[in-house]
Amino acid sequence: MTRRQLHLNAFLMSTGHHEASWRLPESDPYASVDLAHYRDLARIAERGTFDSLFLADGPVLFNHVGQRPSGVLEPLTLLTALAVATEHIGLIATASTSYNSPYNLARRFASLDHISGGRAGWNIVTTAGADAARNFGLDDEPAHATRYERAAEFLDVARKLWDSWEDDVVVADKAVGVWGDERKIHPPRHRGTHFSVEGALNVPRGPQGYPLLVQAGSSQDGRHFAARHAEAVFTAQQTLGDAQRFYADLKARAAAEGRDPDHLKILPGIVPLIGATEAEARAHERVLDEHIVPEHGLQHLERLLRLEPGTLRLDAQLPADLPPESAIEGAKSRYTLIVELARRERLTVRELIGRLGGGRGHLTFAGTPEQVADAIEKWFGLGAADGFNIMPALLPSGLALFVDHVVPILRARGLYRTEYGPRGTLRDRYGLPRPVNPYTVPSLTHA
Amino acid sequence: MTRRQLHLNAFLMSTGHHEASWRLPESDPYASVDLAHYRDLARIAERGTFDSLFLADGPVLFNHVGQRPSGVLEPLTLLTALAVATEHIGLIATASTSYNSPYNLARRFASLDHISGGRAGWNIVTTAGADAARNFGLDDEPAHATRYERAAEFLDVARKLWDSWEDDVVVADKAVGVWGDERKIHPPRHRGTHFSVEGALNVPRGPQGYPLLVQAGSSQDGRHFAARHAEAVFTAQQTLGDAQRFYADLKARAAAEGRDPDHLKILPGIVPLIGATEAEARAHERVLDEHIVPEHGLQHLERLLRLEPGTLRLDAQLPADLPPESAIEGAKSRYTLIVELARRERLTVRELIGRLGGGRGHLTFAGTPEQVADAIEKWFGLGAADGFNIMPALLPSGLALFVDHVVPILRARGLYRTEYGPRGTLRDRYGLPRPVNPYTVPSLTHA
Repeated sequence: MTRRQLHLNAFLMSTGHHEASWRLPESDPYASVDLAHYRDLARIAERGTFDSLFLADGPVLFNHVGQRPSGVLEPLTLLTALAVATEHIGLIATASTSYNSPYNLARRFASLDHISGGRAGWNIVTTAGADAARNFGLDDEPAHATRYERAAEFLDVARKLWDSWEDDVVVADKAVGVWGDERKIHPPRHRGTHFSVEGALNVPRGPQGYPLLVQAGSSQDGRHFAARHAEAVFTAQQTLGDAQRFYADLKARAAAEGRDPDHLKILPGIVPLIGATEAEARAHERVLDEHIVPEHGLQHLERLLRLEPGTLRLDAQLPADLPPESAIEGAKSRYTLIVELARRERLTVRELIGRLGGGRGHLTFAGTPEQVADAIEKWFGLGAADGFNIMPALLPSGLALFVDHVVPILRARGLYRTEYGPRGTLRDRYGLPRPVNPYTVPSLTHA
Repeated sequence: MTRRQLHLNAFLMSTGHHEASWRLPESDPYASVDLAHYRDLARIAERGTFDSLFLADGPVLFNHVGQRPSGVLEPLTLLTALAVATEHIGLIATASTSYNSPYNLARRFASLDHISGGRAGWNIVTTAGADAARNFGLDDEPAHATRYERAAEFLDVARKLWDSWEDDVVVADKAVGVWGDERKIHPPRHRGTHFSVEGALNVPRGPQGYPLLVQAGSSQDGRHFAARHAEAVFTAQQTLGDAQRFYADLKARAAAEGRDPDHLKILPGIVPLIGATEAEARAHERVLDEHIVPEHGLQHLERLLRLEPGTLRLDAQLPADLPPESAIEGAKSRYTLIVELARRERLTVRELIGRLGGGRGHLTFAGTPEQVADAIEKWFGLGAADGFNIMPALLPSGLALFVDHVVPILRARGLYRTEYGPRGTLRDRYGLPRPVNPYTVPSLTHA
């Protein structure tokens, strides 16, 4: 029997996940719009036989440009360029169900799936925040529950569009002049609450049928959505216990939805800070943290917690009277994670900023390659993860260190693939089935 | 003084513009979703030092899959992949102002412009037809004038978004920790009839400022829009006289709008059918036409003319009582072109279908390379064109024949570039200025 194997995803972000990463000598301040930078990162990840690359996104200018690199390449566009520059690695783009049309977005993912030979993935987000809403004609963000309701209908329509072509439409009878079989085209004729979509997609069904469906919110609405629809989940977990509870909860929810729990892969985020010795790794972390401008972190934290500017004090703890998660309309799980982290470890705002600056609340782990591999093996073995979302603090060096020093250990322990093997789709890498087109009549050969 | 030079655009379409092209032996029936096919075409066009590639588009399944290859890769996605596979050639994608959001589309074009090093172009279309409307929650297409009104506001917002970053935002002061100058970010805060868009784009201003702005409708609304906004116009003209009148009209309109008429390049479409002798070219045309299934063409023509199925007879002329262009809500200029062509040459429906099957009403020219070059030089010299939109009937061979046999003649005559020369943007190729950001204070050096 084959031993269960880890899955690894590289979460790319310009000069790295640490907010001060751009200030280090190796970093190119223009990296966020530089295709060559991302091509290098993709090739490093492919050298490490990663399952996939991932790009976060929101249709809004997030950062204050005074503070850190802002402005990025649109993810599906960038990943399409990277599809041509790579051969094997999966390409997961974040795209919003609140600020897209199903027809347009389903087309784009189907197109990327064709172009990449079946390597497209979609991180389905509902997009929190009034700033994004105001870029699309709304005055404020729709309510959390409304956004998830729209997301479910959006995905329903997208599936109908991807299934609107059966896999074997093309007849290609040149002699007679018949290209395809019209009976194998199935217009959605969808009339719902949020969308009406009449016609078939204008892209044939892609190599994967659907792109890999990914989800990253951990609120109750988010978990419900993930249990029903997601095939991979990116999550922020600070402790082994929290991660185990989240893992067990989501697998149980998937089973309760009638799904094979193994068809939902859970990947906690990890920010590895790697050194030849533990002391070297900690020194590297300290250098990064020392480059954080605390006042910038303070403003960022106030926005995350939906507080008025000037509410927080750097050397005090968070106020006791923060609202409960239920009162927050956007990014609920991130809100709770930050508040619980600060309360659990009695962090001052300054300390909390340092912790968040490293990777926005994901598990930061500083140590030797063996220590990082040990942590990964432990979480993987103890029911906390099917793999990891690797979020290097500094790019490209952090990814290269992981690939060249941690990956070989994981391989030597038999936990991780040593090569990609025969050309496969992103679904193949994650051990997920290709969705059957519901219109396709099963073969009667074995009836 | 440098002699005025031709501009050439390659209008790519799966196996070619002739509707029966897919039935010929060289054609791959799966070409429309095959990146390798398009990469080959792009490289042939680049070998011919073409200014640009172009892809048409509508967010709807156009063709009847029984009749000819249907389903394509989404143009901006495909052109992003081709950006990586090419070095010099411009990349012009069609995208609809009726069925996109300005924020999303402006992002995608800015991203492609960065990725391609300044080679992005946008063919701005309003998208005719109820079928497309019904894929986006509408019951019928918006009125022609409403679509153009929305297009004008869409472009206004897109420009504000592309200008929301001045060119020199980035300070990159690593020592102090200041990445950019906030004062050089200008959120549109747009509140209009069709759109409200508050925030700045999340992509820095691209190498070209704006993508090259292209337009292809020749109705009165279309000409008005082109005269105000377009920098290149693709047009279908059947006779030298018609082309000269169109050219003079559009240049005059541009001047009346206060623009330099030379900053609006006019490129009629031409379907070249090339043979070693004229007889060979005509034989090739005949082979293509013989592969048309007349009943398919009949149905297609009825849809184009908005007639009930069964109205037309193959061996009769068009009915005398067709509605005037003013009664047509979509694709007005195409409608008039077809009706006038049929009336002028007293074509039967069968003959008209043969003519349209070759390139949908564009000028088809069968002859030797010298004859094709002569026609091009004539139109170019007599005030009918600044260049041509080359629409090969059969791909890839039709493009290769043009590049390897017609282009050398045009070069020898001094009408066309012999090499790309130093790396330049698409605007540089067409001799168009880079738009100045209105927020950027002019240098006072020479004040």
